[in-house]
Amino acid sequence: MARRYVHGYDPRENTRLQDQASTLVQLLHCDTAYAAGTTVLEAGCGVGAQTVTLARNSPDAQITSVDLSERSLAQAQAAVAAAGLTNVTFRQGDIFDLPFAPESFDHVFVCFVLEHLAEPVRALVELKKLLKVGGSMTAIEGDHGSTHFHPDSTKAHAAIRCQVELQRQAGGNANIGRELFPLLTEAGFDAVRVSPRMVYVDASRPELVEGFTRKTFTAMVDGVRAAALEAGLIDAADFDEGVRDLYRTTEPDGVFCYTFFKAVAVKNA
Amino acid sequence: MARRYVHGYDPRENTRLQDQASTLVQLLHCDTAYAAGTTVLEAGCGVGAQTVTLARNSPDAQITSVDLSERSLAQAQAAVAAAGLTNVTFRQGDIFDLPFAPESFDHVFVCFVLEHLAEPVRALVELKKLLKVGGSMTAIEGDHGSTHFHPDSTKAHAAIRCQVELQRQAGGNANIGRELFPLLTEAGFDAVRVSPRMVYVDASRPELVEGFTRKTFTAMVDGVRAAALEAGLIDAADFDEGVRDLYRTTEPDGVFCYTFFKAVAVKNA
Repeated sequence: MARRYVHGYDPRENTRLQDQASTLVQLLHCDTAYAAGTTVLEAGCGVGAQTVTLARNSPDAQITSVDLSERSLAQAQAAVAAAGLTNVTFRQGDIFDLPFAPESFDHVFVCFVLEHLAEPVRALVELKKLLKVGGSMTAIEGDHGSTHFHPDSTKAHAAIRCQVELQRQAGGNANIGRELFPLLTEAGFDAVRVSPRMVYVDASRPELVEGFTRKTFTAMVDGVRAAALEAGLIDAADFDEGVRDLYRTTEPDGVFCYTFFKAVAVKNA
Repeated sequence: MARRYVHGYDPRENTRLQDQASTLVQLLHCDTAYAAGTTVLEAGCGVGAQTVTLARNSPDAQITSVDLSERSLAQAQAAVAAAGLTNVTFRQGDIFDLPFAPESFDHVFVCFVLEHLAEPVRALVELKKLLKVGGSMTAIEGDHGSTHFHPDSTKAHAAIRCQVELQRQAGGNANIGRELFPLLTEAGFDAVRVSPRMVYVDASRPELVEGFTRKTFTAMVDGVRAAALEAGLIDAADFDEGVRDLYRTTEPDGVFCYTFFKAVAVKNA
């Protein structure tokens, strides 16, 4: 029941992964589209996972995507070029010290970035300075603490908490999704509106069983095994049983639930 | 920060509670409406909390609402009469031995009932017998294990687990929401489709802060204090701190999340 499959060469499998990707893209990004002629800052674009969707959904907006890592920027640039999109400019920069004049952008977009920052409010305050009055801020984050599943398992929750604890030790917060409202409010934004986006997975949604529960979430937890053991957070047998129990939720009678949070707010002053 | 207010006499407060009730009603019931002339069995109507909505949303369907308790039935009958609804018939009966012929109903509806049963699948199998071929089953349940909030609190989770454990000891399952897919599948239903319905609460939704986090969820947890202490599940100081921490989530920077699950399935054979 905890078998892992070798994938990637099976065309049916590739279709499934595309289905999964489009299901998640739809869930998180369906209501983000910027008007023609507006300027959008994507802060922390990484390898461009969201940039392609952002640029595709707002073909006549001018998007500026920044990241700290030159290497990630090169990958993001390649992804955008491969998608045939021409409305994105890339710039290297530190989110706390970006090379733009105040009030340069109509909109700011951050996705899966705040979770890695020790000072998310300070980052939001800096980004707010770059936003024109009346402009919008959109933030999307996951929340590992929202995870619940059937069959339930104490050890699976313990394995997940290893990832949360390691991210905390690195200065981040893997449970930040639920905090978007207070974070944006504290940073001085107005009209903060948060909507939860739950990924609900059961056997009637095989593309999510495979693409989300198995290959996204459980693979991510399993990926911290060595670090968790080295940090003394858990013993190997318990961790492995926890991961097996997460894979167990992908059986025909299993259920898996994870919630992303999306916030949209306005800069009134 | 853990003060409790005396409410009930303030007309503004009554408006708020009505707002809250309609928000939840909308969230859970907006997509349940039965066609004119169809027959609907509501199994386990209790005091009629859902019956009024059910009857109002399907004014030309004939609803039969049953409950084990004559006393609850009398209250449900009064609630339906007070709402001016005339399309509900009440019958006393045991969900495992109902006084109806097989295939008597076009639709069956159960809400907040399975969570109290030691044998939810057997109940679903019995209800399925009363359904015509091609008829639909709708089930709605909460899931206390889905609860997450900000600020997070180990003791608040411990207090919630007291309620879960007491319900388990009484033969029920307060985390049953996530299990609707496997339960309906095991009972032999087809085309089972589950949708999560998260109640997301922050200070921008004051009617839910008051009506859901404070008066519904936290009041419910606080209500098991004596039973939890008597059962030796927790000590008084920890429980009280947990409840205080739940009330803490109703402050302006707090956030509270709870998920209900709704399943609709078909009887094909």
